[in-house]
Amino acid sequence: MNKRSRLDRHYEAIPIAYVESSLVEPADAPNQGDEGAPAAWLVFVPEVIDGLSSLKVGDRIVLLTWLHRARRDVLRTYPGDDVHAPYLGVFSLRSPDRPNPIGLHPVEILAISGHRVQVSNLEAVDGTPILDMKPVI
Amino acid sequence: MNKRSRLDRHYEAIPIAYVESSLVEPADAPNQGDEGAPAAWLVFVPEVIDGLSSLKVGDRIVLLTWLHRARRDVLRTYPGDDVHAPYLGVFSLRSPDRPNPIGLHPVEILAISGHRVQVSNLEAVDGTPILDMKPVI
Repeated sequence: MNKRSRLDRHYEAIPIAYVESSLVEPADAPNQGDEGAPAAWLVFVPEVIDGLSSLKVGDRIVLLTWLHRARRDVLRTYPGDDVHAPYLGVFSLRSPDRPNPIGLHPVEILAISGHRVQVSNLEAVDGTPILDMKPVI
Repeated sequence: MNKRSRLDRHYEAIPIAYVESSLVEPADAPNQGDEGAPAAWLVFVPEVIDGLSSLKVGDRIVLLTWLHRARRDVLRTYPGDDVHAPYLGVFSLRSPDRPNPIGLHPVEILAISGHRVQVSNLEAVDGTPILDMKPVI
């Protein structure tokens, strides 16, 4: 297995949905959804609608977002933007700034209306792309 | 916000590491790591080493893999490949086959040696790209 030849490899992550939220600026978003984030709608792209067919109101799911406004060149930072905290490697932090800015969001489904799904407590800003949605196990 | 113009958008996910494992064939991998998956090494690419600086043996983390051998055109399937089970939308399942085949793996760090990190119970096959690693919260 030639590892060197794979360093330049990348994979194309395609949004399955976008967030519609009253949260507009990343600075207004809480660090975690249970710290007062609002409910939000997910608007799915037509191509993936069949994947929604078994979702029910009340399901607990994990949303995977692509945090498109994050920085990808950050490898060490301060947790919670607290410069008095220790300066840590990003793989020990939940900071959005990291090589692949994928966010994990445990949420509950509040409503389903065609290609639109409302979820609780989502700390992602309006327009954030969604890459995946999985049941909590 | 013009949603239509964003349907063709994609994001480049770049592997930060690759799995080194005795698991070679996806058919041999258990459905979940706690169903008998082996320990495995993660071999990080040189560009992201600084991000590892705060990891410790015993840390519990969530690994995000890109399941590169999964099918991306599947929107409904049978859970656990059981054709007698109900036929469900993939966003209600943990199946690797889905539009963005990102796997979530809760593991524990067993050893750290330079750019190599050993983790417990990883059901991903040898060569699987890793996209991210986050602390469990």
